[in-house]
Amino acid sequence: MDLIDCYYNVRQHTEAICSPLQTEDYVVQPVADVSPPKWHLGHTTWFFETFILKPYFMGYQEFDPDYNFVFNSYYETVGARVIRTDRGNLSRPSVADIFKYRAYVDKAMADFLCAEPSADVKELLILGFNHEQQHQELLYYDIKYILGNNPLFPAYSKEYKSPRIAHVDAPWISIAEGVYEVGFAGDGFCFDNELNRHKVYLNAFQISPNQVTNAEYLEFINANGYHDFRYWHMEGWAWVNDNKVECPMYWHFIDGEWYNYTFHGLEKVNMEAPVTHISYYEAYAYASWRGLRLPTEFEWEVAAPQFKWGKSWEWTESAYLPYPGFSKAPGAIGEYNGKFMVNQKVLRGASEATPQGHERLTYRNFFHPNLRWLFNGIRLAK
Amino acid sequence: MDLIDCYYNVRQHTEAICSPLQTEDYVVQPVADVSPPKWHLGHTTWFFETFILKPYFMGYQEFDPDYNFVFNSYYETVGARVIRTDRGNLSRPSVADIFKYRAYVDKAMADFLCAEPSADVKELLILGFNHEQQHQELLYYDIKYILGNNPLFPAYSKEYKSPRIAHVDAPWISIAEGVYEVGFAGDGFCFDNELNRHKVYLNAFQISPNQVTNAEYLEFINANGYHDFRYWHMEGWAWVNDNKVECPMYWHFIDGEWYNYTFHGLEKVNMEAPVTHISYYEAYAYASWRGLRLPTEFEWEVAAPQFKWGKSWEWTESAYLPYPGFSKAPGAIGEYNGKFMVNQKVLRGASEATPQGHERLTYRNFFHPNLRWLFNGIRLAK
Amino acid sequence: MDLIDCYYNVRQHTEAICSPLQTEDYVVQPVADVSPPKWHLGHTTWFFETFILKPYFMGYQEFDPDYNFVFNSYYETVGARVIRTDRGNLSRPSVADIFKYRAYVDKAMADFLCAEPSADVKELLILGFNHEQQHQELLYYDIKYILGNNPLFPAYSKEYKSPRIAHVDAPWISIAEGVYEVGFAGDGFCFDNELNRHKVYLNAFQISPNQVTNAEYLEFINANGYHDFRYWHMEGWAWVNDNKVECPMYWHFIDGEWYNYTFHGLEKVNMEAPVTHISYYEAYAYASWRGLRLPTEFEWEVAAPQFKWGKSWEWTESAYLPYPGFSKAPGAIGEYNGKFMVNQKVLRGASEATPQGHERLTYRNFFHPNLRWLFNGIRLAK
Amino acid sequence: MDLIDCYYNVRQHTEAICSPLQTEDYVVQPVADVSPPKWHLGHTTWFFETFILKPYFMGYQEFDPDYNFVFNSYYETVGARVIRTDRGNLSRPSVADIFKYRAYVDKAMADFLCAEPSADVKELLILGFNHEQQHQELLYYDIKYILGNNPLFPAYSKEYKSPRIAHVDAPWISIAEGVYEVGFAGDGFCFDNELNRHKVYLNAFQISPNQVTNAEYLEFINANGYHDFRYWHMEGWAWVNDNKVECPMYWHFIDGEWYNYTFHGLEKVNMEAPVTHISYYEAYAYASWRGLRLPTEFEWEVAAPQFKWGKSWEWTESAYLPYPGFSKAPGAIGEYNGKFMVNQKVLRGASEATPQGHERLTYRNFFHPNLRWLFNGIRLAK
Repeated sequence: MDLIDCYYNVRQHTEAICSPLQTEDYVVQPVADVSPPKWHLGHTTWFFETFILKPYFMGYQEFDPDYNFVFNSYYETVGARVIRTDRGNLSRPSVADIFKYRAYVDKAMADFLCAEPSADVKELLILGFNHEQQHQELLYYDIKYILGNNPLFPAYSKEYKSPRIAHVDAPWISIAEGVYEVGFAGDGFCFDNELNRHKVYLNAFQISPNQVTNAEYLEFINANGYHDFRYWHMEGWAWVNDNKVECPMYWHFIDGEWYNYTFHGLEKVNMEAPVTHISYYEAYAYASWRGLRLPTEFEWEVAAPQFKWGKSWEWTESAYLPYPGFSKAPGAIGEYNGKFMVNQKVLRGASEATPQGHERLTYRNFFHPNLRWLFNGIRLAK
Repeated sequence: MDLIDCYYNVRQHTEAICSPLQTEDYVVQPVADVSPPKWHLGHTTWFFETFILKPYFMGYQEFDPDYNFVFNSYYETVGARVIRTDRGNLSRPSVADIFKYRAYVDKAMADFLCAEPSADVKELLILGFNHEQQHQELLYYDIKYILGNNPLFPAYSKEYKSPRIAHVDAPWISIAEGVYEVGFAGDGFCFDNELNRHKVYLNAFQISPNQVTNAEYLEFINANGYHDFRYWHMEGWAWVNDNKVECPMYWHFIDGEWYNYTFHGLEKVNMEAPVTHISYYEAYAYASWRGLRLPTEFEWEVAAPQFKWGKSWEWTESAYLPYPGFSKAPGAIGEYNGKFMVNQKVLRGASEATPQGHERLTYRNFFHPNLRWLFNGIRLAK
Repeated sequence: MDLIDCYYNVRQHTEAICSPLQTEDYVVQPVADVSPPKWHLGHTTWFFETFILKPYFMGYQEFDPDYNFVFNSYYETVGARVIRTDRGNLSRPSVADIFKYRAYVDKAMADFLCAEPSADVKELLILGFNHEQQHQELLYYDIKYILGNNPLFPAYSKEYKSPRIAHVDAPWISIAEGVYEVGFAGDGFCFDNELNRHKVYLNAFQISPNQVTNAEYLEFINANGYHDFRYWHMEGWAWVNDNKVECPMYWHFIDGEWYNYTFHGLEKVNMEAPVTHISYYEAYAYASWRGLRLPTEFEWEVAAPQFKWGKSWEWTESAYLPYPGFSKAPGAIGEYNGKFMVNQKVLRGASEATPQGHERLTYRNFFHPNLRWLFNGIRLAK
Repeated sequence: MDLIDCYYNVRQHTEAICSPLQTEDYVVQPVADVSPPKWHLGHTTWFFETFILKPYFMGYQEFDPDYNFVFNSYYETVGARVIRTDRGNLSRPSVADIFKYRAYVDKAMADFLCAEPSADVKELLILGFNHEQQHQELLYYDIKYILGNNPLFPAYSKEYKSPRIAHVDAPWISIAEGVYEVGFAGDGFCFDNELNRHKVYLNAFQISPNQVTNAEYLEFINANGYHDFRYWHMEGWAWVNDNKVECPMYWHFIDGEWYNYTFHGLEKVNMEAPVTHISYYEAYAYASWRGLRLPTEFEWEVAAPQFKWGKSWEWTESAYLPYPGFSKAPGAIGEYNGKFMVNQKVLRGASEATPQGHERLTYRNFFHPNLRWLFNGIRLAK
């Protein structure tokens, strides 16, 4: 597939994700971690305009200079115009204007890509695809949060296909002690945080072929796990109590039964499905209650070829830290990953929201340990 | 004018205020004091449905029982559905659905009002009109905040007519010492907080025939008034410093000149116009810097027949407190005013946003002393 | 009594209040409103040093220039030494050093007062006495808070004499409608906020000859008054819920009985005594639940000659506002009262902690409506 | 040395650290991370009383049952007595009472230790020694904070010996790639977090024989390092800006020169000494500005035999995580370390405040990345 086709596919998929939304759904930001869908639409466009069209496409005319204030994720104040620009406070640019912006940039990109770009630009372009794919995944998280925290519980789309994950009736997978190689190797794209490929020493361990199910997790709830400090990190325990957490996000106990919000609306919890929308604190507490533990990211990477993965990001015990020899790219592009490498936890795998082709065995996702709005899950180790 | 016409006029005016908006403008809530326009549209409708149609119109079918969660201004949690329902987080009901709701209730009200209502219902109806008129005024404040805090500074409407206030070249108005009557008298509608009419004793005082202008206020800014604690209440001084306040709300200093956001967009400050969008703290500090003071609400009421008022609510020195013999109406309607009678300041007059016919010499508006998004102003006394 | 004797009496009383304390009790500041006793000891001394000795006593040698940082109640930062100086964080100067400071200043004041001071200085001196007396009262509040919030509930002094207030078996006092004079008149000392004496118009009202007792207040608790929003201001209701308030400060429900912390330690609540340590919000809610109200400060001042008062400050409905013609004294002394005239409520009377001779019919005490650590109470009106 | 002597040595050292303090210094808690010295004195005593005397010494009479509320570090509320017990708010028990408590428990311990204790008790005892030694180190941090944030900058003790660290004129230490063993091995005491000894794979790396000096760190300050976001983690950048950090803790720029608070009072910064009192964020930013990095804890452990360490805890890049096979001891003792294993950074080495004999090559100290009041430092790697 050539670059233009790739470009259009990526861009089109973003719009397809948004197509079931009403205009109002594009605008709101119920919590700081969630961005309004219209911001995602604009920001991913701003990325191509700022890093490719403006520096490399001679004669390119910027769509609107003010958009830099709105869609630059690092923008705080410019000159004398000090204004609260929290994303969810901005009714303008309108959704229609942002779609115009997308069309304008897409047209320019198509013109630009008629000529074969240089290797440098090609690299930026592929980063731009991957950047937009990351926002596609975030769009699913954010849309679910926006609709799932509305007291009317509107469905996103009745046609949405929830993934089916069959339980594997197999013993725990055993990995022998020894030196293993981890990190990205090969010719394709990877993020800077997956490099360099390097050796690690692993002790012998076992890892489950299955993720923890809702039924299993419910045993923890029913065993009063949310009220017993022994299973929790001290910070996790404070988090549970400050936020009065009693169950995974989107779960509601109504008339004696557990429901959860899904993209189809409010439904009874499917007990066979893997538990999701739990924080690292909860994942850890669950494992601790079972007398087990979470795998490290390297254990996960070494064992993953032996189990099915890819339906929900799996919390690992590993902190998000640089690999040996990690170095940041120069300039704005270099801000991509390194500056987040403190106080976050690595998740491995992929989720139902991950765009096709974006997943990778060596992919290192990362979130703060209290976050639950992503599609995540638990796989146990020992 | 009969009741149906009154009803339609009030309802229509609300929608006329919103007509220049784009769908996205109806949704956002940049700060807690601002409500999304779509919430005002729904809440005023919910008022008629809840207090008139449901109890008094036999066979009335509620539009949607879930709307009670969304448009009841006192709603916090219902049953097991504990969810953050901050108004600005709700993308649904959509604007279109809320207009359907309005049309549905308006149709029912028209049917209901074919028969002459009882005196009780009539009283509720008139309260409903006044309630909706209060929300019309708030709509202007909220729309200005939503657009005026957007870095694109979109105009609300180029057709919007800003009020012209001519400077009156007249001496200060002198009022003699003595007993005066204040509070509402007459047959028409008033809010419970304007009752009872009662006597007060006033010392001799003088009051300005004009409001303070932007030019006059700028002298205070240029005299470093925002940086001299002597003119401020201790709380005002903390407020200035915590919020780094340097000028009225909506003012911006750009390339050596003062601009402010108006309904037409960003414009140079009109120096002859009365200063507006200042907190009580600023009004007090300004007066203090001039060696003067704000009038009390009773001084204002006694003197107001001798000057022009009605373009911006005037901060008074008076705290918002009950009049002698004040008592709350029973039930939900009784919650209207009394529960706010602590830590708020009275403003007298009316503003450019006040619906025609809603203003009244005895009207007692009230806000916390730090609030600036309303259309307010300063009139000095001594 | 001559000025030196007055000076010594005032100074000695401050130290007598502190005499039952242990060194550690002088140091802590459990909440922002409470100051450590050692700070009161230093600050009242700093007042005489700063406003009398340094400007008026030729050749006076300052005790320690650094003490200005510590005991100036307006100090925030000086030069490059930007340091957190919250009073409760300061272990130095030590209590012993502060007593040395007091002795040093007292010696200098005695020398200074050998010569008859000028009228100006005399005025400052008398302000200094009254200032120290206010801190004597605060010392009692603060000591009670410090000991009463310690889980060991240590007694302040078993010799402390709690006031006895006999119930008066008399009808409500009726005051006729008319013009009355309020505010300070006479030759003695008063604070600037009691001036000028002026006329007010009062409607006819009735006021109780007794304060509300603990037994009466307990009826409100038992009638679920803390859980019924109808009796509360909206802000009061938020305060009750945010702080989970269920009873007056210092009350504890232990094994089915109500105890409260007193200067003798933890004791059963004396049901005949007036209720105290309640916020304005609670006073208002109680009155509202009884179908009655609090008096205004002017009603109180007019009626007070007909009832006994002076054991606990009585919340009034009045906001703390300037009297007609109020003006601030120039300079630091002028900061005394005016800058607090927003968002506070007036209390009238005096309390068991008020130094003898400091109480006055026209005295205007003022606190924010949520504060409970002062000795306050409720008298009803209608 | 027998157990009784060990016990007395440990206990006596705690009191020796406190001996230069005035009573008031024992009481205050300027920030949440700092505990009042008297709390350390009580808590370490409570540890021996609770875990040894009460369960194992027949007939032992508890000193005061209420002390459990005060000195149990996990205590929040007991029964109906819900009271704010932040440590710095408690003036009682007095310092004298706490020394009585220590003497009482020491006497009982001496009696108890006349008989040879069981192996279990011996293990608890040694844990108690190490626990008290950790509090000895914290005492130094907390005392420095208490005195160093007092605007009078009182000296702790003029006799205090600051460590001298000679610069080593040697090349960077090179460690070859390969498998290494880390973690505690041997018979002596270690904390549970140092187990199990296990293999790790290290890439080749180099590490500096010296810690970064104040002079070197000042170059970073002068190069505007605190104002250039490129060197910082995103969280570090927010921390710098929210807290207006411009230099290490205890540094003050006075009349054109850098001073810092030491145990001798305010002194000019010794430019040859290692920089200390910097957060992990600052350590990382400094390394990043130099184009270098911090070592991991395993790199440190492997290389440390080749350099001098022990004067200030060295921030590592490693997150504080469990070693392979880590498991918590059952019961309260088991809460010791595991529950902190999230969002903290490992520091290796020891500091001038570490009690003699308490340091260990495999010791894993850990703090949140923003904390600066401990004695820490920077060693670079590449």
